[in-house]
Amino acid sequence: MHIVITGGAGFLGSRLARQLLQRGTLTGRDGQPQAIKRITLLDVAPAQGFDDPRIEAVTGDIADAAVIERVITAETQSIFHLAAIVSGHAEADFDLGMKINFDATRVILERARALGSKPRVVFTSSVAVFGGELPAVVPDNTLLMPQSSYGAQKVMGELLVQDYSRKGFIDGRALRMPTISVRPGAPNKAASSFASGIIREPLNGQPSVCPVTPDTRMWLMSPRQAIANLIHGHEINGADLGLARFLSIDGLCVTVKEMVEALEQVAGKEVVQLIEWKEDEAIKRIVNSWPGAFEAKRAKALGFTADANFADIIRAHIEDEVKK
Amino acid sequence: MHIVITGGAGFLGSRLARQLLQRGTLTGRDGQPQAIKRITLLDVAPAQGFDDPRIEAVTGDIADAAVIERVITAETQSIFHLAAIVSGHAEADFDLGMKINFDATRVILERARALGSKPRVVFTSSVAVFGGELPAVVPDNTLLMPQSSYGAQKVMGELLVQDYSRKGFIDGRALRMPTISVRPGAPNKAASSFASGIIREPLNGQPSVCPVTPDTRMWLMSPRQAIANLIHGHEINGADLGLARFLSIDGLCVTVKEMVEALEQVAGKEVVQLIEWKEDEAIKRIVNSWPGAFEAKRAKALGFTADANFADIIRAHIEDEVKK
Repeated sequence: MHIVITGGAGFLGSRLARQLLQRGTLTGRDGQPQAIKRITLLDVAPAQGFDDPRIEAVTGDIADAAVIERVITAETQSIFHLAAIVSGHAEADFDLGMKINFDATRVILERARALGSKPRVVFTSSVAVFGGELPAVVPDNTLLMPQSSYGAQKVMGELLVQDYSRKGFIDGRALRMPTISVRPGAPNKAASSFASGIIREPLNGQPSVCPVTPDTRMWLMSPRQAIANLIHGHEINGADLGLARFLSIDGLCVTVKEMVEALEQVAGKEVVQLIEWKEDEAIKRIVNSWPGAFEAKRAKALGFTADANFADIIRAHIEDEVKK
Repeated sequence: MHIVITGGAGFLGSRLARQLLQRGTLTGRDGQPQAIKRITLLDVAPAQGFDDPRIEAVTGDIADAAVIERVITAETQSIFHLAAIVSGHAEADFDLGMKINFDATRVILERARALGSKPRVVFTSSVAVFGGELPAVVPDNTLLMPQSSYGAQKVMGELLVQDYSRKGFIDGRALRMPTISVRPGAPNKAASSFASGIIREPLNGQPSVCPVTPDTRMWLMSPRQAIANLIHGHEINGADLGLARFLSIDGLCVTVKEMVEALEQVAGKEVVQLIEWKEDEAIKRIVNSWPGAFEAKRAKALGFTADANFADIIRAHIEDEVKK
């Protein structure tokens, strides 16, 4: 089988590819495990660090229908659509956010529809679809009220996945992923970027700014857990999702204070002192509009899992990413 | 001030125009009542029956940016965006629904944004945004789960109105209108078309088919009430809408059985005998996915009003539409 991963050069996309290569199979059109013959990593930058012949790295604009037509073909049974303009960036550049987060999603779903073979499409959505007055722990049936353009664009993407699946054009599933922490690499323009930065940078001996207050609650997931849940989200039977093809994935609820305490516990006091507390109103406004915890009853019932605690997430990050 | 009404040749659009002409003023950019100088009725067919010099009838495709650019100009302070592909039609022709219900909405909002003057935009949404398991009376904070392409397209329109307003591009309000009954004119491809047909046709001595069961609950509004609420929706202060620019408008909850009983009460037994009961699974599926009653707390608090009872709606219809 052939798999397409958009955002395939990104840290989540390339990790997903590695995990899939190691796994070797994925549920195919027939509902049975099939050997993974080819994985296309589509991104604006070339995916690097692969020497497996099953990997094909393609650079191109995901909003360009010609690019999508070239990449998603009759052989494509599964699409992981991870590419996005992140929250802070989509807020700063509305038109770019609409183009990549919404129009490109539509181009991809239209192409999937045109295949006529009902491919599985895993779309990554976000906790940013929520906003407004919310209970402390958010149930699955909570009204979506995004307070950022990113959140609005993700809801529109969910609606497309929902309606294209209902119409039988695709077999889609939109997974609302918790904030990924600790994310490796450089800071990005996501409003949540600090949630990795305040751990990652100090562990590398570098200073980091925390733009929110210590009592800010985050709904988190480690990269390992995220990859496991993306694959699980692909593998579940679409019919088991019932009327709603969108799903809030189970995560870990921690305050920023608890994150920093866990960092101190794992790496010591000096490391924590590299965090500078400096509130940023724009980031606070977006992050505080997101819920800090979810019931995630549907996700749990469908077998999605969460990290046990944040200290373990930090330890896994050190194991996977920090140079010894 | 200049007002644009899309779907301006339709029964709701042309009634709205007549009401606005009679009213003479509408709240302008400055928050004060301004004299209505010009109303452009944009539609695929020419608006007819107007001899007021303030009326300008324009025919054109609302999804065509050039048409929208010509119609919405620097003078335009208010846009009532009523044009839509109705539910049954959007379900049968997915691409046309996406084009008119979503893409055209985006073209209109983009044009409104380009003006830079933050015009008021009244967008008509629908109870079709709801679906799935619902309480008997639906509260304002209910999760939207459209079970038709029309419903999905309306939610996406709401999200655009919401985000364009939050960004300060427009001063928008998305009003979820109850099913309009009794709608004059010919049957259309809306799944709810019968809700007018079973009253209108028998009153004109013609047979009519009811495709749903007598216990089906409808959430209704008379044309008069709909026009009053569209204008009220324009007049309210956008800031009073708070974080949510979308709103379920208060309506009247009746069963189809009660509708027919009211018809018998107003027009007699012979008229009711013109109704043929013949279930249609496709229509039943869509109509039964809509809620039959709403709390509409926000709408009530904002001064929107509902019809008192269905018999009065029938009497008003006879007064307004049925030839004596």
